[in-house]
Amino acid sequence: MDESNSKLTPVSSLGEFGLIDKLASNIMIKNSSTLKGIGDDAAVIKPDKDKLTVISKDLLLEGVHFDVVYSPLRHLGYKTAVVNFSDIAAMNGKPKQLLIGLGVGARYSVEAIEEIYGGIKTACEVYGVDLIGGDTTSSASGLVISATVIGEVDKDKIVYRNGANPNDLICVSGDLGGAYMGLLILEREKKAFQADPNVQPDLSDHDYILQRQLKPEARTTVVDLLAKENIVPTSMIDVSDGLASDLKHLCKESDTGCVLSEEKIPIDQSTFDTAKEFNIVPTVAALNGGEDYELLFTISQNDYEKVKKIDGVSVIGYMTDPTEGERLITSDNTSVELKAQGWDALKRKD
Amino acid sequence: MDESNSKLTPVSSLGEFGLIDKLASNIMIKNSSTLKGIGDDAAVIKPDKDKLTVISKDLLLEGVHFDVVYSPLRHLGYKTAVVNFSDIAAMNGKPKQLLIGLGVGARYSVEAIEEIYGGIKTACEVYGVDLIGGDTTSSASGLVISATVIGEVDKDKIVYRNGANPNDLICVSGDLGGAYMGLLILEREKKAFQADPNVQPDLSDHDYILQRQLKPEARTTVVDLLAKENIVPTSMIDVSDGLASDLKHLCKESDTGCVLSEEKIPIDQSTFDTAKEFNIVPTVAALNGGEDYELLFTISQNDYEKVKKIDGVSVIGYMTDPTEGERLITSDNTSVELKAQGWDALKRKD
Repeated sequence: MDESNSKLTPVSSLGEFGLIDKLASNIMIKNSSTLKGIGDDAAVIKPDKDKLTVISKDLLLEGVHFDVVYSPLRHLGYKTAVVNFSDIAAMNGKPKQLLIGLGVGARYSVEAIEEIYGGIKTACEVYGVDLIGGDTTSSASGLVISATVIGEVDKDKIVYRNGANPNDLICVSGDLGGAYMGLLILEREKKAFQADPNVQPDLSDHDYILQRQLKPEARTTVVDLLAKENIVPTSMIDVSDGLASDLKHLCKESDTGCVLSEEKIPIDQSTFDTAKEFNIVPTVAALNGGEDYELLFTISQNDYEKVKKIDGVSVIGYMTDPTEGERLITSDNTSVELKAQGWDALKRKD
Repeated sequence: MDESNSKLTPVSSLGEFGLIDKLASNIMIKNSSTLKGIGDDAAVIKPDKDKLTVISKDLLLEGVHFDVVYSPLRHLGYKTAVVNFSDIAAMNGKPKQLLIGLGVGARYSVEAIEEIYGGIKTACEVYGVDLIGGDTTSSASGLVISATVIGEVDKDKIVYRNGANPNDLICVSGDLGGAYMGLLILEREKKAFQADPNVQPDLSDHDYILQRQLKPEARTTVVDLLAKENIVPTSMIDVSDGLASDLKHLCKESDTGCVLSEEKIPIDQSTFDTAKEFNIVPTVAALNGGEDYELLFTISQNDYEKVKKIDGVSVIGYMTDPTEGERLITSDNTSVELKAQGWDALKRKD
C-alpha cells in the first residue's frame, strides 16, 4: 500500500455489517411510501393505489462504463443515481426509492466508498429519493456499481416507447452532444498526461460539457412541466445512446417513420466550439454522442401550443408513416437516411 | 481464441440490442401485476391495493461469491434467482418479478450467457416469477451478476427481523450445514484437480450436499404452509450467513436474547457424515456454514400446536429477555455463549 494511503481505513477493519451500519447512518426517509429501508432481508414499499410502480436497473463496470482516472468518485456516485432517475423520467414518472450494490477491490478504502455513497446520497437529496438498500461486497477486480431505482407514475400518465403516431411532433429537452464532447476532452487530457505526467490537464473553458459528462442531471423537472401543461407524451425515451439511435428506438417500437430536422437540433455553444476543435460536425456529435440524459418524446400536434410554453423544449421533427422510413433533413435541405452510430456497450470494446 | 471454442458465437456478433432481443424472446408474463417487462426504459408493475411491495437486490462477483471452475453456468443462474427469491420469502412474501444485470468478459460466448439465462428462466418458471429486465454489458474482468427481485406480501402479514418477543419459539425449516459441506467437497476436488489434472473429481455419494451448494431452493412453500396454518411469524430471516449469525441478527433487531438447543438443530445424514470426514463437528457446520437458504423464524408460543403440523419445520429454541444474552445449550447440557463465525463477504478475503 502506498504511503499516502496510510491514513485511509481498510474496508476489512469494518467488515460487511460494520460498513452497512456506517453507510446506512444519517439516512432520513422522505417518502411516505417507503415503509422499510436498509436493514432487513428486503425493503418494503406501500404503493399508492392510483399509481403504477416503475423499476429500472443499471450495472456500471470500471473500465467499461467509467474511468476512475478522471471520474471523481463522488461524481461517479451522483451520476450512477441520476442515470437511473432518468430512466424513470423517461416513463413520465418520478423516482422514489434507490437500491445500490457496490463491489470494491482491495485498493478501495472506507473513505473511497464513502465518497461514492456521498455522491449517491446527494443525488437522492436533490431528487427526493430514499436510499432503501445498500450492499457492499469485495471485488476480485475493478469497481462494480449496480443500481435499482423504483418510481411511480399516475395510472393514466404512463408513457411507453411504443405510442407514437404518424404526424406526432418530435420534441427534446435541453441540448445534445455536450456529454460526448466532455468525454473527448477528458480522453485527450488523459492521453497527454499518460505521455508526460508533468503536463497538467487543460480543462479550462470546458465547465459545461465536463459537467454534462461527469455530473449529468435527470430531467424530472420536464416531467413536472409536462404535467402542468396537461401534456401526456405519446412516446418517450431518454437520450442515453444518442439522438439518432434513441429516436430509431421510438420509431421501431411505435411502428412509425420520422423526419428529423438537422437545423432544429439544440446544441450549446460550448459543444459547438469543442466539436469544431476536434474537427467533428456539431450535429454529428449531437446525433451520435450518448449520455446526454435529455428526454426525447413525441406529442400530438394538438399539444403544440402547450409545449411551446415549456422553456428548454425544442420541436425537432415529426413522425411519419413507417413506409417513409427514418429521414434526416440536413441544413442544406437534403433528405438523407437517418443513421445511428450510437454507443453500444458490447460492440464498443471490439 | 481456443480452437475448441471456434463454434461458439462471440457476443460482439450480436451487439447489445441483438443480445437483449435474443434473451427476451420466449418470455411469457405469468403475473397479472406485470404490465411491461423487458424493452422500455423501465419495467412497469401494477401493485395490488391490498399488498405491500418488497424489494431486494444482490450483487454476485466471480472469484468472490462463486467459482466458475465448479459452478455450472446454468446452476449459477438458477442459484442467483433463488437466493433473491429467498429474501422475499424471509419477509413472508412471494417473489413476482426479477431483473437481471449481467457483466461478461470477452471469453464468454453467447452460448455461455444463454446457459446463465437458461438457469434464471428455469428458476422463474419453477417459482412463478416474471423476468422483467435483462441487461447485458461487457466486463473488463470476471463475470458479474446483479439481480433485483420484487415480491408482494399481504399488508397484515409482513414479517420483519425486529418483531420477536421473549418466550417466542425459534423455528427453522429443512436442515442446516449441507451447503457448506458441499462447498468443502467442491474445494477439495478442485485442489486435487489443480495438483493433478488427470484426477477426475470424486463427487460420488454427495448428491444432496452438492445440490444444496450449487442449486439451492427458496422456501416459498413454507410461506404458503404458514399462511395455511394461519401463523404470522413474529420475526424472520433466511439462513444465508449461518444459523448462529442469522439468529443473532433476529436477537439484535428484536432486542431479545435467545436459548438455542444444539441437539434440536436439524442436520441431514449426508451433512453429518461429510462433516465427520472433514473432522468438523456437525453442529458447528450447521451453526456457521452459510447459504442454506432455510427460513429461520420466531412464533408466539400460542402457535406451537399449529407449527407442529408443518412438515419439515423444527423448533430449536426460544427467545429470552436481552439481559440473558445469546446462549447455546450443548448436547451435554452445558450453556455456552452463542458465537457467530458466519460468512462475511468482506472479511473473508483478508
